[in-house]
Amino acid sequence: MPPLSNDIVLRALLREPVPYTPVWLMRQAGRYLAEYRATRARAGSFLALAKSPALATEVTLQPIDRYGLDAAILFSDILTVPEAMGLGLSFAEGEGPRFERPLRDEASVRALRVPPLESLRYVFDAVAEIRKALAGRVPLIGFCGSPFTLACYMVEGGASKDFGTIKSMLYKNPELLERILEVNVAASAAYLNAQIDAGAQAVMIFDTWGGILADGAYQRFSLNPMRAVLAQVQREKEGRRVPSIVFTKGGAGWIEEIAQSGCDAVGLDWTADLGACRKRIADRCALQGNLDPHVLFAKDSDIEREVEHTLTRFGEVGEGAGHVFNLGHGISQFTPPDAVAVLVSAVKSQSRAFHKVSA
Amino acid sequence: MPPLSNDIVLRALLREPVPYTPVWLMRQAGRYLAEYRATRARAGSFLALAKSPALATEVTLQPIDRYGLDAAILFSDILTVPEAMGLGLSFAEGEGPRFERPLRDEASVRALRVPPLESLRYVFDAVAEIRKALAGRVPLIGFCGSPFTLACYMVEGGASKDFGTIKSMLYKNPELLERILEVNVAASAAYLNAQIDAGAQAVMIFDTWGGILADGAYQRFSLNPMRAVLAQVQREKEGRRVPSIVFTKGGAGWIEEIAQSGCDAVGLDWTADLGACRKRIADRCALQGNLDPHVLFAKDSDIEREVEHTLTRFGEVGEGAGHVFNLGHGISQFTPPDAVAVLVSAVKSQSRAFHKVSA
Repeated sequence: MPPLSNDIVLRALLREPVPYTPVWLMRQAGRYLAEYRATRARAGSFLALAKSPALATEVTLQPIDRYGLDAAILFSDILTVPEAMGLGLSFAEGEGPRFERPLRDEASVRALRVPPLESLRYVFDAVAEIRKALAGRVPLIGFCGSPFTLACYMVEGGASKDFGTIKSMLYKNPELLERILEVNVAASAAYLNAQIDAGAQAVMIFDTWGGILADGAYQRFSLNPMRAVLAQVQREKEGRRVPSIVFTKGGAGWIEEIAQSGCDAVGLDWTADLGACRKRIADRCALQGNLDPHVLFAKDSDIEREVEHTLTRFGEVGEGAGHVFNLGHGISQFTPPDAVAVLVSAVKSQSRAFHKVSA
Repeated sequence: MPPLSNDIVLRALLREPVPYTPVWLMRQAGRYLAEYRATRARAGSFLALAKSPALATEVTLQPIDRYGLDAAILFSDILTVPEAMGLGLSFAEGEGPRFERPLRDEASVRALRVPPLESLRYVFDAVAEIRKALAGRVPLIGFCGSPFTLACYMVEGGASKDFGTIKSMLYKNPELLERILEVNVAASAAYLNAQIDAGAQAVMIFDTWGGILADGAYQRFSLNPMRAVLAQVQREKEGRRVPSIVFTKGGAGWIEEIAQSGCDAVGLDWTADLGACRKRIADRCALQGNLDPHVLFAKDSDIEREVEHTLTRFGEVGEGAGHVFNLGHGISQFTPPDAVAVLVSAVKSQSRAFHKVSA
């Protein structure tokens, strides 16, 4: 593999000195880009796109080529793992994911198994192909869903308004939920390790739904399983550390505990005050985030002002502090593509003043 | 008016000593109760029920009669105010509220006016009739939606998945949103004062959607307008203080600032740790909450255990500390009614041990 010519994201995640605040965007390869829509049309469906290493490589690189972002993230979906478990995944147009065979009774939970890695081969092939295509320009981030977030989809059968089914299971039959989580932990750890083996240079756990849990339940059913995943993930590859990021949407209230989960960086949504969060964890982890994706619908000058607000909230980045700029959630499909160029340029130019030690 | 025979909620909201932790439940008069469904069927529709003082009184008292809760809350809806502004409210079965004429352009915002109180007379008549029917058994809580939460419905036209329309307005044309909020502040303050005049003994502001805002935007567009409402609300009536509660769902991250908004108590959802929140505001306000409504789907012994967990998290209630037990969100329509009896009895019996000073 060629050496990385831009490793700023990796260094920022490990709180090493960098010349500016690196930036990438959750769901950066997506429907807001015309070139993505064209590739997606060729693939025929979202799942077909995710399952084709060649096409997944193509869309992963599109935002890198267009914007000069500081990291690529594997184009895939968190539900590849439960799909490989045989739950029957489909994406109805405009309706989000659906599982044909959700886990609703003890028998289906008992039958749940860690899927053979071979069934996810297309993901690892995509990782390898993307690494090759990137040719060292920027690092590649691999990812998985959190064990609890996967369980939400696996039990509810799809997106849910109030997560009544999984919450009823949690309070009525917590052992059953823990059995699902146990399988998800083992599957997710193996999945991330295989991504790292294939070439992923950092990993992120997306905990989209941990934030719906009560205090106490979050720690037991979402954070602890993520900690268990992280404990099994290899930390070094190609002679350098593979940083890990944990992102619980709506989880800023638990940041002290998240920062002690074994991750190198904590992702934050837009409701969090980066400065206050940084103080609360005393810079023990890097922070990633946290612009409201809707800022990208504003005028250029407003985007620049909001970027400045975010950088200012984080504050000066000295020795031992790390900030990776990102949105607080996936970019909206309706985002005007030019707004992303404004954002990236604003982050790169404005952030230099916040970095005392340049590297 | 007859004197209150149970004023424990009012005293707890003002952090005065009480013998046990009082309890009421958000949306306690609702579809989970067969007697509510019977009255609702007689009314014909949700709006007809809310607009009939006699029927609103009937359903307001149903959970008091059944469970011996420590407070009644006016049966109504936060959208009565924008309805009175002429936006054309309807509730499609199973679909939530819809406004026929949402605020989408400058002209409709400029035309927005504080509605005459006369158009909300049915609410104040209901308050007076409920007070009479309660005959001093427990206090009556009045309420309104937060100016920002009302604006969400007024701009989006109904419930929304990502609040794209109002957030675009917020970032592209904040002055327009502030004009809406200004009208909502004036209307809400007048509305709460008229409820107090009619007999409401405490008031609560429901900020259902403030928690979707970015840090910074929350303070400007949700908290500040609530502060403005509170500044205009009368604080005394019938010779005693009228306590006020502010509840921002998902707002625990801002609790220090909410506690300084002029309210007497802060409502918290289930994601918050009551003990940590109490420390953060140094008991400057009472706290209300915060059991996950889904706990009510569990076995009796699990409900009792979760009640104990909540009481323990708050901790000992000595001089100057106040806790009003509640759910962290409205009770689900699918709740088994017997579970509520278990909850109320568990709170009343278990909480005595946490109160050092009995009154």
